Amino acid sequence: MTVPRIGLAAGDPGGVGPEVVVKTLNRADLLPPAAYIVFADPRVLEAEERRLGLLTGARPGPPGASPNPGVFLVPVPGLNGPVEYGRVSAANGEASFRSFEAAVAAARGGRLEAVVTAPVSKAAWALAGHPYRGHTDYLAGLYPDALMTFWSERLKVALFSHHRPLSEAVAAVRKDSLLAFFRSLHRSLGRVPGGPFRLLAAGLNPHAGEDGQLGREEIEEIGPAVAAAAAEGIPVSGPFPPDAVFLKALGKADAVVAALYHDQGLIPFKLEAVATGVNVTLGLPFVRTSPDHGTAFDIAGRGVADPRSMGEAVRLAAAFSATGS
Amino acid sequence: MTVPRIGLAAGDPGGVGPEVVVKTLNRADLLPPAAYIVFADPRVLEAEERRLGLLTGARPGPPGASPNPGVFLVPVPGLNGPVEYGRVSAANGEASFRSFEAAVAAARGGRLEAVVTAPVSKAAWALAGHPYRGHTDYLAGLYPDALMTFWSERLKVALFSHHRPLSEAVAAVRKDSLLAFFRSLHRSLGRVPGGPFRLLAAGLNPHAGEDGQLGREEIEEIGPAVAAAAAEGIPVSGPFPPDAVFLKALGKADAVVAALYHDQGLIPFKLEAVATGVNVTLGLPFVRTSPDHGTAFDIAGRGVADPRSMGEAVRLAAAFSATGS
Repeated sequence: MTVPRIGLAAGDPGGVGPEVVVKTLNRADLLPPAAYIVFADPRVLEAEERRLGLLTGARPGPPGASPNPGVFLVPVPGLNGPVEYGRVSAANGEASFRSFEAAVAAARGGRLEAVVTAPVSKAAWALAGHPYRGHTDYLAGLYPDALMTFWSERLKVALFSHHRPLSEAVAAVRKDSLLAFFRSLHRSLGRVPGGPFRLLAAGLNPHAGEDGQLGREEIEEIGPAVAAAAAEGIPVSGPFPPDAVFLKALGKADAVVAALYHDQGLIPFKLEAVATGVNVTLGLPFVRTSPDHGTAFDIAGRGVADPRSMGEAVRLAAAFSATGS
Repeated sequence: MTVPRIGLAAGDPGGVGPEVVVKTLNRADLLPPAAYIVFADPRVLEAEERRLGLLTGARPGPPGASPNPGVFLVPVPGLNGPVEYGRVSAANGEASFRSFEAAVAAARGGRLEAVVTAPVSKAAWALAGHPYRGHTDYLAGLYPDALMTFWSERLKVALFSHHRPLSEAVAAVRKDSLLAFFRSLHRSLGRVPGGPFRLLAAGLNPHAGEDGQLGREEIEEIGPAVAAAAAEGIPVSGPFPPDAVFLKALGKADAVVAALYHDQGLIPFKLEAVATGVNVTLGLPFVRTSPDHGTAFDIAGRGVADPRSMGEAVRLAAAFSATGS
């Protein structure tokens, strides 16, 4: 039986990442058949198992060339002492960065079909000398076509821009870049199971500009980009009023909202899928998913973290891997 | 028994306004005790009652100086022929404008405690020579302190700016204007039942700027405005990350999110309260509420319009009137 190889980078040891990884893999019997390979400092995983009283059953080392189902551990030494919970630290930043880097290297080398990343702290990465704005920022450096998308059962959203000031995001709404975004998104979605998908383009201004009365980007930039993409056969429509397009897409399995800026997409997504949303990076030669929550330092080490979003991230990674996307 | 006098402007005759008014007043026994006074062309109301097979029991004329509970009709002639459903027309625009104008005049004259407005078409108003961007725009001309807010059982949102292009809305985020907004909002909320309310200020940029890395408005404008308002005793906190603040407020009866631009507030509000949300204009000497939907020309005249949002608008108007807000 050949199964997908899914790497799990355990995240910041001081946050809830290792906890949701252990909780999820403790019930690997409920997950799709796969080789689940944790990239972590062994002490982090062991400490977490002991603390929670839950075992992952992880066996050392990666699975062989013909992978078997099960849970495995690739040790990535990173800590010099015991885990410190609940705060930003350089040691935790270094450990989480190394786990992530090792999992990505394995995927780039063709030894993983997917990487699932538990939450890291950008501030801890910076303290450790790795000044990326997060996983997606690191991946975008390797793969310029990387796309930030968000998946839940009822809503799917792709972001045209993400980590930039709103004034810059507004100024970046230009026909050529949008057309490139629609092309790239459509191409990536073609490899995702559950398709074909259609794109619903959000407008930028209130009521999508109301025929130019409340802004002209819909007429001068977004509308022409949608028309040009549609002329190439890309199933995209819009621009729709931003406060209507998410309701329009909600519950439609084949609809993906193309949002123009970070909060236009994430305000509705977090409201709709607070505990079960998954962050999916498209446009890579492998699958990358992540739970849609942060390190949650305020509840780390207390055993109360909700593992549902991590569970969904793992399931989605398995589903996407199974079809070779 | 003295009851509040609540005017209902019937909205565009070609849209779903008269339908949701008739459906709501047909079950006036389920509403709080009040004098419900419809401002409409009598032919519009009669045609709607006949078409739906539902009666409002409206008696002609306004109630006396000491108002009695019941449903009343103030005739506002506006049409020259039969109702045309489902499209923008100057005749319908004129009729809806006159109904609204008459209700507002009665409220300004102290003869109504509240006005509930059914949906109008801005395009029809323009055809009829009344170039306002809607009810709130008209009211803001009379009352510069008018505030656009949105109420549902689980979420309450106030808008710092509404009908302007996003690039302008971003540029308008300045400390002094925000402070004036917080003051005005706090003062108006003081007259609303269910308080005292606290304000949760949304940030402008992703992650509320992340310490200035993703935009500086939080540091230079919003944070100082929050601090200045708090120093005056206004219960306001933030700025919070825009994709977290609505979850933070959700279900908290005393929390009102201060949103910085139209879609920041309305994307989550419409998602959360699609069929039951109410638009409330604060900062007026009377109460004004409105259902949170439009004329819905596509389903007008078919009897299928959902009256829940109108029902909630009427209930909220009655509740706010009862305490003299």
